[in-house]
Amino acid sequence: MKCTGGIDLRDVEEMNINIDPIQAGGRLTADAMKAVISYGDGYSVCDNCGKPFRLDYINKPPIAEFHEDLAAFVGMDQARVVPGARRGFQAVAGTYVGKGDPVMLTALSHYTEFIAVENAGGIPHEIPKDAQNIIRADAAAERIEEVTRTFGRPPVLLFIDHVDYQFGNIHEVREIARVAHDYDVPVLLNGAYTVGIMPVDGKSLGVDFVIGSGHKSMAAPAPSGMLATTSERAEEVFRTTQVKGDLTGRTFGIKEVEMMGCTLMGVTLMGMMASFPHVQERVKRWDEEIEKSRIVIDALTSIEGTAVRSEMPRRHTLTRVDTSRSFDRVAETHKKRGFFLSSALKKKGIVGVIPGATKVWKFNTYGITRAQAEYVAAAYLEIAEENGLSVSPAE
Amino acid sequence: MKCTGGIDLRDVEEMNINIDPIQAGGRLTADAMKAVISYGDGYSVCDNCGKPFRLDYINKPPIAEFHEDLAAFVGMDQARVVPGARRGFQAVAGTYVGKGDPVMLTALSHYTEFIAVENAGGIPHEIPKDAQNIIRADAAAERIEEVTRTFGRPPVLLFIDHVDYQFGNIHEVREIARVAHDYDVPVLLNGAYTVGIMPVDGKSLGVDFVIGSGHKSMAAPAPSGMLATTSERAEEVFRTTQVKGDLTGRTFGIKEVEMMGCTLMGVTLMGMMASFPHVQERVKRWDEEIEKSRIVIDALTSIEGTAVRSEMPRRHTLTRVDTSRSFDRVAETHKKRGFFLSSALKKKGIVGVIPGATKVWKFNTYGITRAQAEYVAAAYLEIAEENGLSVSPAE
Repeated sequence: MKCTGGIDLRDVEEMNINIDPIQAGGRLTADAMKAVISYGDGYSVCDNCGKPFRLDYINKPPIAEFHEDLAAFVGMDQARVVPGARRGFQAVAGTYVGKGDPVMLTALSHYTEFIAVENAGGIPHEIPKDAQNIIRADAAAERIEEVTRTFGRPPVLLFIDHVDYQFGNIHEVREIARVAHDYDVPVLLNGAYTVGIMPVDGKSLGVDFVIGSGHKSMAAPAPSGMLATTSERAEEVFRTTQVKGDLTGRTFGIKEVEMMGCTLMGVTLMGMMASFPHVQERVKRWDEEIEKSRIVIDALTSIEGTAVRSEMPRRHTLTRVDTSRSFDRVAETHKKRGFFLSSALKKKGIVGVIPGATKVWKFNTYGITRAQAEYVAAAYLEIAEENGLSVSPAE
Repeated sequence: MKCTGGIDLRDVEEMNINIDPIQAGGRLTADAMKAVISYGDGYSVCDNCGKPFRLDYINKPPIAEFHEDLAAFVGMDQARVVPGARRGFQAVAGTYVGKGDPVMLTALSHYTEFIAVENAGGIPHEIPKDAQNIIRADAAAERIEEVTRTFGRPPVLLFIDHVDYQFGNIHEVREIARVAHDYDVPVLLNGAYTVGIMPVDGKSLGVDFVIGSGHKSMAAPAPSGMLATTSERAEEVFRTTQVKGDLTGRTFGIKEVEMMGCTLMGVTLMGMMASFPHVQERVKRWDEEIEKSRIVIDALTSIEGTAVRSEMPRRHTLTRVDTSRSFDRVAETHKKRGFFLSSALKKKGIVGVIPGATKVWKFNTYGITRAQAEYVAAAYLEIAEENGLSVSPAE
């Protein structure tokens, strides 16, 4: 079936096992799908908007209540929804970062954090990762100290990815936050790969901002996300407009500057809300997700020459694998070259790995069933054996 | 039927005639609804993302082609999709407006334009409206001249609403753009109430930026919108990231700073795309929409004491009505007070007017059928007569 304009309808999730690194946590729940159908129209949540005119005050549908729940979900005091985690980074950077200000990022920071800093005119400084690709507090302390010496003042903001996009590793967030606070540097936790799939408690981690992605990890449509913070920081990042029309004297009430007024006025928010009760439950089952991921990891590492580049044992379902001495050797002589692997997987109904990638690649098993994980594991072993790679039981 | 979390499914559009001022142009087309169902999952458009990794380069679904079509649709050279018109304002203000810079707005500018200026640190100056509530070029010239004298330099940007949110009036855009360009001031057209419902040709209007709203006027889910510009300005507002990881040396390719990388990675964009062929057609039928609006206007103005505050004859379907000497007089003694009007309308299946409003209010007939327009017209007359207001044929 097609829509107009040459759009093929999408059935990737229905017809395949999708292990795409970024898509796993954003698949809608059935309730979200219902909400999406019902709230598809543009400003669909504004039917009952009244004074004060702001998205997070609407009670029908229960958007106000949802905002309280969201804040509580990540252990913070206040929350807003935003059009993607990146717009949360932009809001925080817009509040704290001025032209020429030093900002701490890490060697594993996502590109959208860099762009948020660039957009605000800040100067990014990376905290290095260690040999295990972990960002550690001692490295953070050293780098903050160095930057403070160079600039004659501490950095204005520190970004730390709870789990990074490259390795899916968990970093020393709590310890880094403590170090940053010693220098009075506010700490932004990028929870794009954690909020909505594993338990996250911002207060216990000691961070000032928790940012999550709806379409990456909260079973919500794009673009959606959340920005949660403490009561203290809320006054800064959620400051209301002070501007005034110089002729008309118009002022604009309680609209928030960094939110640009209202943010998600329809389908994205409603999808997020409808999934939320399921999301609250699923984070409690994170251990099961790790176990399923290990089924695939064990299969992969039993293939000769295959190494996992992420920290081991795995603590997240996003994993970086190095097959440059296994599947890539096959690619050298295979008539399909590097495409043999994605092609063989596709034939078995497994999608989401970059076509042509046989050296270093990532996959994410989040949300697949145990039976599917076993099927994926078996598929990799079969493809290895069919192509002359030897397979030995995992150590 | 309910989703989880206490969400009632929405049937406002199916069960009623909705004349809400902001919702009329954002109702989905049937094709958009299909697309929404199919592309509800988070990053649903990213299945075939490849080098270069950016939303507007994706060919399957045909997102790249859609971007070209969008630019052509408003007579500009390049376009990007954004999470709402306001995010387009933010991108342009972020590019041109620095701290303390004078910026031209108007007495009828939407609050999101003010907030975009505030967010960038600019100082807003309003161009006054005339007695007919129209923004005219002579007023613009005077105010630009005044601001230029005061600051010792011209304003850095001028916002003009093609059609404003208060009266639904059409302003002297072409002439204002000419005046602004005499001072080398770039001109941003806020087409939130025009792009997608009436023909808009940015090049012919002589503006530098055309911004449209998907959820307000392009039959698309929220948040969505577009920012189109000339080749020359595209280099500025769509500049790519230049930032670099100071330790890792990482750079971030062709991601655009003001777009924060990719913008609408799923359902919002696909809804917009699926509606687009219908939107391209419907703007040609703008005259019919005006006619339908006049059916309701004629009825309202035939009620004693009722006045239209928008320019007459109407050239837009959003209209501001003053019933402080008609329906509001009824409200004084009615047992439901000011709620009698919205309540009586609701009983007749007409929604979208603010409950309790009987003095000055707005409505928008866009997209209703001729029979529905006649029904709405008759409903107002009936309510007037039932409440003792005399009705005389329109002059």
